[in-house]
Amino acid sequence: MAKMKAAVFVEKNRIVLEDKPIPDVGPLDALLRITTTTICGTDVHILKGEYPVARGLTVGHEPVGVIEKLGSAVRGFSEGQRVIAGAITPSGHSNACLCGCAAQDGAGTRHGFAAIGGWKFGNTIDGCQAEYVLVPDAMANLSAVPDSLSDEEVLMCPDIMSTGFAGAENGQIQIGDTVVVFALGPIGLCAVAGARLRGASRVIGVDTVPERLALARQLGASHVVDFQAGDPLEQIMALTEGRGADVAIEALGRQATFEAGLRVLRPGGTLSSLGVYSSDLRIPLDAFAAGLGDKRIVTTLCPGGKERMRRLIEVVASGRVDLKPLVTHRFRLDDIEQAYELFANQRDGVMKVAITP
Amino acid sequence: MAKMKAAVFVEKNRIVLEDKPIPDVGPLDALLRITTTTICGTDVHILKGEYPVARGLTVGHEPVGVIEKLGSAVRGFSEGQRVIAGAITPSGHSNACLCGCAAQDGAGTRHGFAAIGGWKFGNTIDGCQAEYVLVPDAMANLSAVPDSLSDEEVLMCPDIMSTGFAGAENGQIQIGDTVVVFALGPIGLCAVAGARLRGASRVIGVDTVPERLALARQLGASHVVDFQAGDPLEQIMALTEGRGADVAIEALGRQATFEAGLRVLRPGGTLSSLGVYSSDLRIPLDAFAAGLGDKRIVTTLCPGGKERMRRLIEVVASGRVDLKPLVTHRFRLDDIEQAYELFANQRDGVMKVAITP
Amino acid sequence: MAKMKAAVFVEKNRIVLEDKPIPDVGPLDALLRITTTTICGTDVHILKGEYPVARGLTVGHEPVGVIEKLGSAVRGFSEGQRVIAGAITPSGHSNACLCGCAAQDGAGTRHGFAAIGGWKFGNTIDGCQAEYVLVPDAMANLSAVPDSLSDEEVLMCPDIMSTGFAGAENGQIQIGDTVVVFALGPIGLCAVAGARLRGASRVIGVDTVPERLALARQLGASHVVDFQAGDPLEQIMALTEGRGADVAIEALGRQATFEAGLRVLRPGGTLSSLGVYSSDLRIPLDAFAAGLGDKRIVTTLCPGGKERMRRLIEVVASGRVDLKPLVTHRFRLDDIEQAYELFANQRDGVMKVAITP
Amino acid sequence: MAKMKAAVFVEKNRIVLEDKPIPDVGPLDALLRITTTTICGTDVHILKGEYPVARGLTVGHEPVGVIEKLGSAVRGFSEGQRVIAGAITPSGHSNACLCGCAAQDGAGTRHGFAAIGGWKFGNTIDGCQAEYVLVPDAMANLSAVPDSLSDEEVLMCPDIMSTGFAGAENGQIQIGDTVVVFALGPIGLCAVAGARLRGASRVIGVDTVPERLALARQLGASHVVDFQAGDPLEQIMALTEGRGADVAIEALGRQATFEAGLRVLRPGGTLSSLGVYSSDLRIPLDAFAAGLGDKRIVTTLCPGGKERMRRLIEVVASGRVDLKPLVTHRFRLDDIEQAYELFANQRDGVMKVAITP
Repeated sequence: MAKMKAAVFVEKNRIVLEDKPIPDVGPLDALLRITTTTICGTDVHILKGEYPVARGLTVGHEPVGVIEKLGSAVRGFSEGQRVIAGAITPSGHSNACLCGCAAQDGAGTRHGFAAIGGWKFGNTIDGCQAEYVLVPDAMANLSAVPDSLSDEEVLMCPDIMSTGFAGAENGQIQIGDTVVVFALGPIGLCAVAGARLRGASRVIGVDTVPERLALARQLGASHVVDFQAGDPLEQIMALTEGRGADVAIEALGRQATFEAGLRVLRPGGTLSSLGVYSSDLRIPLDAFAAGLGDKRIVTTLCPGGKERMRRLIEVVASGRVDLKPLVTHRFRLDDIEQAYELFANQRDGVMKVAITP
Repeated sequence: MAKMKAAVFVEKNRIVLEDKPIPDVGPLDALLRITTTTICGTDVHILKGEYPVARGLTVGHEPVGVIEKLGSAVRGFSEGQRVIAGAITPSGHSNACLCGCAAQDGAGTRHGFAAIGGWKFGNTIDGCQAEYVLVPDAMANLSAVPDSLSDEEVLMCPDIMSTGFAGAENGQIQIGDTVVVFALGPIGLCAVAGARLRGASRVIGVDTVPERLALARQLGASHVVDFQAGDPLEQIMALTEGRGADVAIEALGRQATFEAGLRVLRPGGTLSSLGVYSSDLRIPLDAFAAGLGDKRIVTTLCPGGKERMRRLIEVVASGRVDLKPLVTHRFRLDDIEQAYELFANQRDGVMKVAITP
Repeated sequence: MAKMKAAVFVEKNRIVLEDKPIPDVGPLDALLRITTTTICGTDVHILKGEYPVARGLTVGHEPVGVIEKLGSAVRGFSEGQRVIAGAITPSGHSNACLCGCAAQDGAGTRHGFAAIGGWKFGNTIDGCQAEYVLVPDAMANLSAVPDSLSDEEVLMCPDIMSTGFAGAENGQIQIGDTVVVFALGPIGLCAVAGARLRGASRVIGVDTVPERLALARQLGASHVVDFQAGDPLEQIMALTEGRGADVAIEALGRQATFEAGLRVLRPGGTLSSLGVYSSDLRIPLDAFAAGLGDKRIVTTLCPGGKERMRRLIEVVASGRVDLKPLVTHRFRLDDIEQAYELFANQRDGVMKVAITP
Repeated sequence: MAKMKAAVFVEKNRIVLEDKPIPDVGPLDALLRITTTTICGTDVHILKGEYPVARGLTVGHEPVGVIEKLGSAVRGFSEGQRVIAGAITPSGHSNACLCGCAAQDGAGTRHGFAAIGGWKFGNTIDGCQAEYVLVPDAMANLSAVPDSLSDEEVLMCPDIMSTGFAGAENGQIQIGDTVVVFALGPIGLCAVAGARLRGASRVIGVDTVPERLALARQLGASHVVDFQAGDPLEQIMALTEGRGADVAIEALGRQATFEAGLRVLRPGGTLSSLGVYSSDLRIPLDAFAAGLGDKRIVTTLCPGGKERMRRLIEVVASGRVDLKPLVTHRFRLDDIEQAYELFANQRDGVMKVAITP
């Protein structure tokens, strides 16, 4: 049985490169030979034992690769094609998928819905930080990459870009809106770009790291706020002449940013939450106008599926958004443990790493 | 100067009937002679000092009456017409009004938005529990009542029906949805009727008072759950074969109902919150799927304005909803202090009272 | 090779019962043993040669049946289950499906979209007027029927109910709307029921056949208009005191009804078109306000997929809509040629026929 | 009585500068001293007698000016402020306004709706090509211009920009969409900019005038198609690899562009029509997929009101769109007849003219 290298969760604080069998290809699957992948903040949660996965699972959910082998029932693709798949791989045939809620795909469950059921790679099935990955429901999930784009140019599509843009999309931004994005990690930066793509006239990025504030400007923020240079709410209210934001996007997963997002909204505004929280949240009565302020809180899990991927590739190909600056470091798969060490500790100004087997 | 009787907030636990001058009519106003009005749960909060209003303010925000006098600039109405106005009286010309957020009308504020700024009657201006009330921005707020309908038949339109229906509307109910309504006071009962009007196939009402459970069935609930007869979540999950609700409507304003609403939702569902809260809220991490469940929380302040009132009157006139059973007690304005005593203490199975000057 | 009986399109004006092989079951398919099916107006177009299909094709797209055999890759169903499938059978994995446009499923085409590509039964693959039918992409399309419902009770779900309701849903009916439905055949009658389910307060049905006008009332029309008893537009304008309709639903597929639908709309209204047209349409300049009236024209192909079917079954099971009166005649499959004769000529007040093998 | 100069419609082919009284200011009005205005294609229709207005009416609906005098009931503005008002001036208090359909404002009509009732300036009341204009319902319609912006920078906001952007907004463009804009006059060019602001990845502009094609590229078109250089549909299909457009925007008002818009759509796409038509339209059966293609046709009248204007000013102030290149010629009000001569005959590459009293 052929073997491959894969980054495997062994136990808390240990993700190591191991040899595993190259998986068998079922009728609906595709086997990808990974050419580039990356590490996500969620993978660090897994590493730290904060998000539980099975021991022995291959980690990673952001694949760029070449189709090595197609399942017997897969039509519409050919071996040798360069493709991506989203971090979320909806089956296409669950009840959740068939009513526009594909990220909560519960194929195989009784009712067809399961919380974050669409997130399979590196969560419930083996993931992408490996030489090969098996893509389930390949017909719903593979999207061809045009020759004109490099692996790194589409590397943000599977997760970071899809999630960040979705924060802007679900915030229902209108032309002329003021949007505040709290936390300018990779997802927050993509939310900045997404807010701009949806027509916001003011996009205010909030963080404190100078490189992140600079990247936010580069990706479309009209203003940035350093939360250590003074109360961020006061700064935002000053920038908006007291009006507040139409839409706030939370991109960190903490009480402080969630609460600031609620407070900064004008009556009738929307808080679009992208963060992964690790404890209960509190809604302060005043920030919520006692439930009478027509405020909305929406949460979004990264949209996946091949049509989403096709559209994001189109955005990259059209030159409307350039996310290449997000890739700050590159590693070989053999050195992925070092990549985790750098990324988990946020050393050396790292934003995203590119991993190549 | 002519005088009228009015129920006035004097101090905590004292709303008393006093003589006040009949107000002058500005160019955009209409003076209504009240023929029927009612008491709202919010008025009880005012009575108890839980919601602050100015001393000497006339209370009440649910008017049915006859136009006594029109302002000089008002067109399209005539004196002697029988009309209602909504509890919320948007100006029509604020920025909030002009972008579809009329309940947060901030006419006169710098940016045109103010939290619950559209709620004026019995909040920031004199209200309706009086012989006369002055309706601001009359052209935007008066709606004629057809002769075929009695005062009591349209008495729920200004607030209870508009709020309860809006909970269903903003929940974005789809045909075939399962909707759970938590708390079956007047607003919850109207949310039951609204959920049915939007096409829910299962509407599950949750309360414990037998009369309220019975009324819920009468207004369209397919199932009722007595939360004292067992864990309500377990009962709902059993009724939905474990699927949960597409939409939950909170109609009380408490942590317990808010939290139960979140927990009962399927991934991708919406919690539509109508209650007026009096303390901070907690979002349990698990009920929120750590922010990754595509859940939404929407809050709604009662929609007002004459077009909203026109539509609600149409619903009543068409016979699609019969809210007459909600009026359980009748008082003369002279006896309003007794009405408060009954209503505030929820004696004698009271749902809503009709007050006639 | 086992044989079955099937109603086959032979040539213009000839659909005949023939013996055909029972089809083989591919990995994603399910073979249903049909227990009840019906004839659609579209089948009559096929019979008359007005809609082209391949010679030898089995006709019919409204199946109720029992799973005889499941494909090797199908999970979540079991042989012996009683199920329906929609008239439209989306694959779930096309680009169209993955962006909320499943009826235009173009799985296998280059871009994943194809006009009416989701309509396969009796159009591009063998249909349901037979002893057996092969359901493609079974996991996306089969929906279990509860024991409490008879075949006839769910017989309208696959097409008539899904289409008629979708006319109301895509018209974006709001609570309190006035909706006019032009033509009260089976689909128009379901549009009446759908308009009511979405909260219309006035639903005006237009036809001339007394039985159809009576059925419309039974299914929720508040008013009916006999277009032979006077100019229908004048009658509708009188019923709405000159206001016109918020939403008009076209359910015939003719210039006259399309045009009347446009004319009857208030400014800002929506014409929701369900009919299958057979010639170019004309938009009169005045009815369209020269393009400046904020009018919308939306067209809808019957939504399919198992989640849609599940929801429609729920609506039936909840008792909210009773479509049993639509089944006016019953035939055995052996007598389907007589059924066509009756149905195509609209004899004997026929609405829908039930066909049982 | 003080006099002013005004461009008045006298008869077909004669708009002349005349002396008229400066209007009196009613309680809800504001009198603006015009500082800059412009001529619209609609004004040319009026000049040519193709769109009927009363003889003696002052023409023009795109005002930039200074508040000279406020009505007695107007609050929130001060004399001397520099402001704009939209071409469409909703009252704020009609039923149309109160249900999100402000452009069809029918204040004063029986039902509160009137086709294009919100268009008053130069249509039903005196317009802006004059030294002064009276703005009705001033509180709903005036929007302050920041000092940092010149008159010409906001001159497109009242009509061209609002209309063009609305074509994109109502087309419901999604991130990654392909949008085709037919005809690149001022409105089509703004639709190009609007499509880009909503996140289209490909925006294809169709015209034949080289300057317009160049301006389209400058404003965000990724591709341009010269319809005289070959069949435009073939060119577009080649550019989209046969996929067609998600959204087509019609910006001319002719059968040819309307029909091409329908044909170029993928199944499920939207034709967003902005043009003013002058004859009946034809919907070809095939382009409409016989009514089964899930295609939508939406029409939009220029959105107005002060909140819309505020947002458009924000877009200009943020630098996201630069429409200054659209102003190709400048005239004094005294020379407006020459301006009409130039503009009506589209001489000298004119796009828009700036007129200053």
